[in-house]
Amino acid sequence: MNDLGVTVKKDEDFAEWYIQVVLKSNLLDYAPIKGFIVLKPYGYAIWERIREVADKRFKESGHQNAFLPTLIPESLLSKEAEHFEGFKPEVFWVTHAGNDELGERLALRPTSETLAYEIFSRWIRSYRDLPLKINFWNTALRAEIKSTKPLIRTSEFLWQEGHTVHASKEEAEDEARLMLSIYKEIIEEYLAIPVIAGYKSDKEKFVGADYTLTLEALMPDGRALQMGTSHNLGQNFSRPFNIKFLGKDGKEHYAWQTSWGISWRLIGALVMIHGDDKGLVLPPRIAPIQIVVVPIFYGDDSKHSVIDKCKNVYALLRDRFRVHLDDREEYTPGYKFNDWELKGVPLRVEIGPRDVKQGKVVLARRDDSRKVSVGDEELLDAVTNMLEDIQHSLYRRAYEFLKSHTFSTLTYDEFKEHIEHGFVRAYWCGSQECELRIKEETGADIRVIPFTDDSINDTDMLKEGGMMKKEQVRDGDEGDTRCIYCRRSAGKIAYFAKAY
Amino acid sequence: MNDLGVTVKKDEDFAEWYIQVVLKSNLLDYAPIKGFIVLKPYGYAIWERIREVADKRFKESGHQNAFLPTLIPESLLSKEAEHFEGFKPEVFWVTHAGNDELGERLALRPTSETLAYEIFSRWIRSYRDLPLKINFWNTALRAEIKSTKPLIRTSEFLWQEGHTVHASKEEAEDEARLMLSIYKEIIEEYLAIPVIAGYKSDKEKFVGADYTLTLEALMPDGRALQMGTSHNLGQNFSRPFNIKFLGKDGKEHYAWQTSWGISWRLIGALVMIHGDDKGLVLPPRIAPIQIVVVPIFYGDDSKHSVIDKCKNVYALLRDRFRVHLDDREEYTPGYKFNDWELKGVPLRVEIGPRDVKQGKVVLARRDDSRKVSVGDEELLDAVTNMLEDIQHSLYRRAYEFLKSHTFSTLTYDEFKEHIEHGFVRAYWCGSQECELRIKEETGADIRVIPFTDDSINDTDMLKEGGMMKKEQVRDGDEGDTRCIYCRRSAGKIAYFAKAY
Repeated sequence: MNDLGVTVKKDEDFAEWYIQVVLKSNLLDYAPIKGFIVLKPYGYAIWERIREVADKRFKESGHQNAFLPTLIPESLLSKEAEHFEGFKPEVFWVTHAGNDELGERLALRPTSETLAYEIFSRWIRSYRDLPLKINFWNTALRAEIKSTKPLIRTSEFLWQEGHTVHASKEEAEDEARLMLSIYKEIIEEYLAIPVIAGYKSDKEKFVGADYTLTLEALMPDGRALQMGTSHNLGQNFSRPFNIKFLGKDGKEHYAWQTSWGISWRLIGALVMIHGDDKGLVLPPRIAPIQIVVVPIFYGDDSKHSVIDKCKNVYALLRDRFRVHLDDREEYTPGYKFNDWELKGVPLRVEIGPRDVKQGKVVLARRDDSRKVSVGDEELLDAVTNMLEDIQHSLYRRAYEFLKSHTFSTLTYDEFKEHIEHGFVRAYWCGSQECELRIKEETGADIRVIPFTDDSINDTDMLKEGGMMKKEQVRDGDEGDTRCIYCRRSAGKIAYFAKAY
Repeated sequence: MNDLGVTVKKDEDFAEWYIQVVLKSNLLDYAPIKGFIVLKPYGYAIWERIREVADKRFKESGHQNAFLPTLIPESLLSKEAEHFEGFKPEVFWVTHAGNDELGERLALRPTSETLAYEIFSRWIRSYRDLPLKINFWNTALRAEIKSTKPLIRTSEFLWQEGHTVHASKEEAEDEARLMLSIYKEIIEEYLAIPVIAGYKSDKEKFVGADYTLTLEALMPDGRALQMGTSHNLGQNFSRPFNIKFLGKDGKEHYAWQTSWGISWRLIGALVMIHGDDKGLVLPPRIAPIQIVVVPIFYGDDSKHSVIDKCKNVYALLRDRFRVHLDDREEYTPGYKFNDWELKGVPLRVEIGPRDVKQGKVVLARRDDSRKVSVGDEELLDAVTNMLEDIQHSLYRRAYEFLKSHTFSTLTYDEFKEHIEHGFVRAYWCGSQECELRIKEETGADIRVIPFTDDSINDTDMLKEGGMMKKEQVRDGDEGDTRCIYCRRSAGKIAYFAKAY
């Protein structure tokens, strides 16, 4: 079993543990080109679940899906200069079709702003055509020069990119904020991962955006991971792409825009945060298989009645849960237990001859390995409650980790100590110079400048223990609110961390 | 209204009519690169419906979805020589990433056999790993040198490609046949398009396949359109890609494989076959909006009660149908009628002041423009029946067209006359020479060699009137079963047509 299971401990070699888990649990495999991966059916099923949940939210909030080609002419990609400079180093270029050299190079979509907006400009004439709210489920291609990591950084990734056009600045601001809150809900309530919401610094924002909103999570090795971003593009693209509309006032105006995205990186975060030494641990609301039913019998005497009961239990659960009956004959129950634990299925139903006789089943939780025996008549309720409990317990555990690894400090010495272990919350003067110096000296970026209103962030966490109170770094620190680096007066509180 | 609506008649300028319909009904738009298109939300919604229906069938028959990268190294794509020669002229090549020239050119996936099979070969060890049945929803990219036509022939297209690996030749044969029958069911029962099922000739089969199964439909201009194909790859790929498994006999064997696909071309066929001078006509089972509710009021007196009733009707229908309430204030009912007719919504519910008073509504069918007034209490039943009736009536109409445009002949002179108007069913000796000569002289290909058992083909059509009896071209023609071209004795009956 050793070569099938995970052979390193999560807290001993986190990087190796991660690779073993994603490969051995059958989430994915390497592709024959360096930096590219293949999602196997089990990994893709998780992506399908995320897509299903997100797609429903997008449609409920008035967005529609559409399709754009993979290729963007260079002249179009370069139309917004800053944007082009940002993506240029990692663009894959098509130069030939068959044996013919193309007249103009074609970029493989690193993101679709330029292509979408050239097209949107033809669709929009008047305020009646607004808002335009479109989403694309596709892949983005960016040649990764840094070292890659499956699901976290690869040269092609599955994602969705939303693109909206509005008649007013306020509407675009509301949209950017709304999409961030939808992402937050999906990530916290389905993936059971707590995140901190706020702004990116100008240095870290999307190239071409007025500002970028972000959700940041903390991985077990103390490094931050960007989970989703929502960009307010202002009129930065509507001007070069000539997206104008005739307003109710009878005049022409440039439109206001947003774009936003989440990717399969969320699956990587899921693995890192909830996984353990046995493998994946999936939150019930996102797990492709929530419950696996495993028959246990020795010899042929009990086989028939055990299998029968398993089939009945499967049939009972099937309407309400994503359940799988593992009736493979060529594997032992022990092998199956390990296999489904590696794959992170939240709940296992074990049924043996004694359970048949006594009218019971055994429920085994993946998250804490507890087992309970319940009577057949309680099964449905017990399973329902237990799945909910696993969901919440995974979130609580991740939340406790985030809380205990988010440090507040007023001194740069403490900063340098804490930054090795998680988020450091500190005052920052707002200058890019300090930001760059801190990055050089510690390797840490500003991950997020938290919202100062509580509408999006978890108020519990912001308030609890005074540690993360929104307006101040520490209780009673009104006397020392100077920049952690330059000691000038600070306008902002920022979360720093080393990042993936 | 004229510039918004379709300005040519379907039977006067079919090609121009098609372009106007797909553009004006908001299915799609041109992309800024020649030969590429964008699917707008309405067009994409039809694709989502097709995907939903097909995906369910795929999963029910034991297939799982997964993800493969867009890029394939040249060395891999060229591993099966015949396959590579077939696709080479239309491959888009990536030669640079950022400023760096790549060591090896990367192909944009024209189809994924080579990439998938390199990977599958690592996943398969023994018979326990078989069958492997995986599907990919993605796009394929093939630089079109011939003239392009939206949805029918474009340089990138949405499709699905299924790839399976089996332990025996028979199992692969069954799989190829099964997938064709699933496609046939979707196309006939959802898209309401009758198709003829059978084999491609060796000349027309997929490059690298043992044989290709195909479904062929007939467009209103008498040209055939290939609707879906299913390939039995034999061991043609398992040998170069080394897909071997340890059999139950303890020996190593090369595996047997299939691949199969349908694309957004199905939407193009839908438009061509069912559309009319007013625009799209969508079969209810595939329509993103099955019913549109349009309020009709003059002045403010009746407005309130009419809108109220519309909302009630919408609420009543919403649980069982895909329904839309068009309560836009800035457009007249007449404008809305035209708009939804252009978009092909199968059923319109009109509600005016008199309908409110009399406890009735008016139902207007898109397919035949008939209107009936029904009492509120009959509404649900009437709508249910009418949608079913539209679905069947569209199929029947398309079936009658196919039947009346499929000609059987024993002489080459008649062949040349009929071939301008539809399918010609004739004896063929089986030689590629005759096939090529016929192509040269008439422009027609062999589209399909029908199955000689009736398990898949519509037996009604094959039997009706003796015209299309499966074993013979004409009643009593046993005396003259010679090849339509060379007059040598013929082994096969083939359907010829000019094609898209």
